[in-house]
Amino acid sequence: MELALRYNGGRMKKLIIEFIGTFILVATVGNAIVSGSPLAPLAIGAALMIAIYAGGHISGAHYNPAVTIAVWRRGKIGMFEMFFYWGAQIAGAIVAAIFVRYVHSEAVLDIVATFSAPANEFQARVLGAKAKVQPSGSAPGHIIFVVEMLWTAVLAWVVLNVATAKQNAGNSFYGLAIGFTVVAGAIALGGISGGVFNPAVFIGLCVMKLKTIGDIFLFWGAQFLGGILAATAFSFTVEDKS
Amino acid sequence: MELALRYNGGRMKKLIIEFIGTFILVATVGNAIVSGSPLAPLAIGAALMIAIYAGGHISGAHYNPAVTIAVWRRGKIGMFEMFFYWGAQIAGAIVAAIFVRYVHSEAVLDIVATFSAPANEFQARVLGAKAKVQPSGSAPGHIIFVVEMLWTAVLAWVVLNVATAKQNAGNSFYGLAIGFTVVAGAIALGGISGGVFNPAVFIGLCVMKLKTIGDIFLFWGAQFLGGILAATAFSFTVEDKS
Amino acid sequence: MELALRYNGGRMKKLIIEFIGTFILVATVGNAIVSGSPLAPLAIGAALMIAIYAGGHISGAHYNPAVTIAVWRRGKIGMFEMFFYWGAQIAGAIVAAIFVRYVHSEAVLDIVATFSAPANEFQARVLGAKAKVQPSGSAPGHIIFVVEMLWTAVLAWVVLNVATAKQNAGNSFYGLAIGFTVVAGAIALGGISGGVFNPAVFIGLCVMKLKTIGDIFLFWGAQFLGGILAATAFSFTVEDKS
Amino acid sequence: MELALRYNGGRMKKLIIEFIGTFILVATVGNAIVSGSPLAPLAIGAALMIAIYAGGHISGAHYNPAVTIAVWRRGKIGMFEMFFYWGAQIAGAIVAAIFVRYVHSEAVLDIVATFSAPANEFQARVLGAKAKVQPSGSAPGHIIFVVEMLWTAVLAWVVLNVATAKQNAGNSFYGLAIGFTVVAGAIALGGISGGVFNPAVFIGLCVMKLKTIGDIFLFWGAQFLGGILAATAFSFTVEDKS
Repeated sequence: MELALRYNGGRMKKLIIEFIGTFILVATVGNAIVSGSPLAPLAIGAALMIAIYAGGHISGAHYNPAVTIAVWRRGKIGMFEMFFYWGAQIAGAIVAAIFVRYVHSEAVLDIVATFSAPANEFQARVLGAKAKVQPSGSAPGHIIFVVEMLWTAVLAWVVLNVATAKQNAGNSFYGLAIGFTVVAGAIALGGISGGVFNPAVFIGLCVMKLKTIGDIFLFWGAQFLGGILAATAFSFTVEDKS
Repeated sequence: MELALRYNGGRMKKLIIEFIGTFILVATVGNAIVSGSPLAPLAIGAALMIAIYAGGHISGAHYNPAVTIAVWRRGKIGMFEMFFYWGAQIAGAIVAAIFVRYVHSEAVLDIVATFSAPANEFQARVLGAKAKVQPSGSAPGHIIFVVEMLWTAVLAWVVLNVATAKQNAGNSFYGLAIGFTVVAGAIALGGISGGVFNPAVFIGLCVMKLKTIGDIFLFWGAQFLGGILAATAFSFTVEDKS
Repeated sequence: MELALRYNGGRMKKLIIEFIGTFILVATVGNAIVSGSPLAPLAIGAALMIAIYAGGHISGAHYNPAVTIAVWRRGKIGMFEMFFYWGAQIAGAIVAAIFVRYVHSEAVLDIVATFSAPANEFQARVLGAKAKVQPSGSAPGHIIFVVEMLWTAVLAWVVLNVATAKQNAGNSFYGLAIGFTVVAGAIALGGISGGVFNPAVFIGLCVMKLKTIGDIFLFWGAQFLGGILAATAFSFTVEDKS
Repeated sequence: MELALRYNGGRMKKLIIEFIGTFILVATVGNAIVSGSPLAPLAIGAALMIAIYAGGHISGAHYNPAVTIAVWRRGKIGMFEMFFYWGAQIAGAIVAAIFVRYVHSEAVLDIVATFSAPANEFQARVLGAKAKVQPSGSAPGHIIFVVEMLWTAVLAWVVLNVATAKQNAGNSFYGLAIGFTVVAGAIALGGISGGVFNPAVFIGLCVMKLKTIGDIFLFWGAQFLGGILAATAFSFTVEDKS
């Protein structure tokens, strides 16, 4: 990266943006979850939206390794470049997670990690006292896999269409569309898988102790597969390959 | 459809988009309702918005047979094409409903279907214990009919104005306007009729056991009539027929 | 109006749009309030936003007599035309109110009118049981007057800037800006004055028994004065009078 | 200012807009907090958004001394001009705070100031009765400093990118991006520092007794430093200095 800094100012600018944008996203994810606010999904989607609008003109504003893999399959970024993007995104997520832990006492974080199940509250209520409230994201593994794969695919598919399709060039809605894909997914699916949809966010959640690193194959597998799926689906309908 | 696939790549692309978009919408409708989140209406409208922004440049992004009938009356799609659109939309809705049932246990879905009445909670509270809380969408049939007809008409009327009127060509707000028509309708009218406004969503809800197929004439009649009404209202004010 | 219909197709189109748009707004206001949803302010602002995006290219999408008076002061509409607009807006509001009463039983509406005080709940909680919870909008008259005047002025001032200033021609944000002015005002000030900000909405609320017609001078006076204030404030900063 | 009024109509217009915009923002902040609505963060961000869309074409719509310092570092405003902007912003905030105190009884404001801790409720719930609920914004000073500095930097960095970068000229999303930066920050960080991110808002909160003037060095120091940080971060990635 030292070398990149010296010889490739353009790339370094992109990596700075990917770092900052993923930091903004993951810092909001962590603090919004710990705050216990019912508006947390809106905060998270809004953070993604504003980071995209701020950085899109420089790096393309992926902030998500699964989106980057979709954009690579789409042919809009090189494979070498993709690895740099992943590094910047994961670094941003880790620093954001450390910030969240700095802001909140460890004790609070541990308690949230154990009992956080806002999206399951309703089920608990209708199922009565006998129902065991599961922590958010502790659905059976195969269901988590399908949910994370599918909505990450939706997210990356939206990105490809609103940010790389020629017919949509110059639009003002790309950030709104991508950010609110996460709003919708976090509300509708947050109680099932935790609503991660992003390998860098997953790492950040692990550092915050809200996910366990042992599930990395489950989440990363589903999410990267989702990104590839999105690129494939996109290729069926794109009218102009360039 | 095989034939269509072979001989009409352009149409097939549109049908893939209509399938994916309606899938995204109905998957969010189902999971958001079952999650019991107070933000469910926002999730549903956001899902429609993002699917419109992603697919609008390819298929026009109807995702709703009642919108398609309005666009047909507007003269922007052929009758033959309309039937293909309906098929793709209903197929997307059914696959999404199966996905929702896969994600949630049957038991949870049944309980939600029986007791889901979030929008009526307030009425129950102010009316006291004597009031019988009605399941969401069990208002008298004629009121459901009027509500579904009227707001489906509003939805289709918004679509015709923001997405087909010449004066609005090239705008960036069409998805926001259409998606938030559903946000407003779901919040304000969800407690009356269930806030369906879409024949394909109705089918999806039946597969999820959140509506009963026996009400199909009530809902489809109201919704398709609403689409036709919208096209008529639009024709009174359009300044340019082309 | 018969004559207008016969001789002035252009004006009639505008009046149809003003009627439909105000109907959409007031139908949402009424049903959202009665639903008791915590998202009611979002529904109301969203309804205004979508009606503006749908009808703005035809009538300018005022849907509010106080906005129309501001636009008249701005010189963008004639006085004669203004009276027609007012008529269409009030007619739309009355028909919407009848629709709301048709959908909900009278009994529910009466109870809501008596006890609706969601925005005051917090004050009641912190002030304890001794505090008398006032119905929404029963603050002292002079405070209601100032609040309604001020935020109606903000609303009309936003309209003048985003929809009539030359430098903002062709933007895609006008509906978002105007609609969310009502979202902000309804959340922040709804517990004080009811958050009306619109003479036609006031009439609709009277028909729904959520406001009393005896307060018409208080509300209309404040709101029309707010519209005039907005035009005055706008005139100080406009860079191009045309 | 008298002189400015006489000799510099262009500047005076900008200062009027900065005054009005900051008034709208702070009036919403105060009333939304006192209302106790769970949607308060949305109201506050929406107020900023609509004031930006309304006034951006005249003054640049800072409404925030920390944003103004960032824009000065960016070279888009003179230092002399900056001081005028600060004056107009703080004046708007103070008048807005007086308006909030006029609307609400003193007693209510005092009680809110003492017990307002909505964002900490969840922590209190999970930590049990032993946990001492801290008033909103009474985290340790160094954490408040870091949080206010960081998110003010995010806010100013978003402003510089969406409103001053050449590649984003003519976009329609700038107000949405800036306003929802505050929505995200208020939800995620409101329980830590109060979510101020703006020296003028801080002054307004002091006048409302929701913050104490003794903390001015803590908040102003963090916020102005955040603005300078944003300009520095921006300078690393800007592709065109002009």
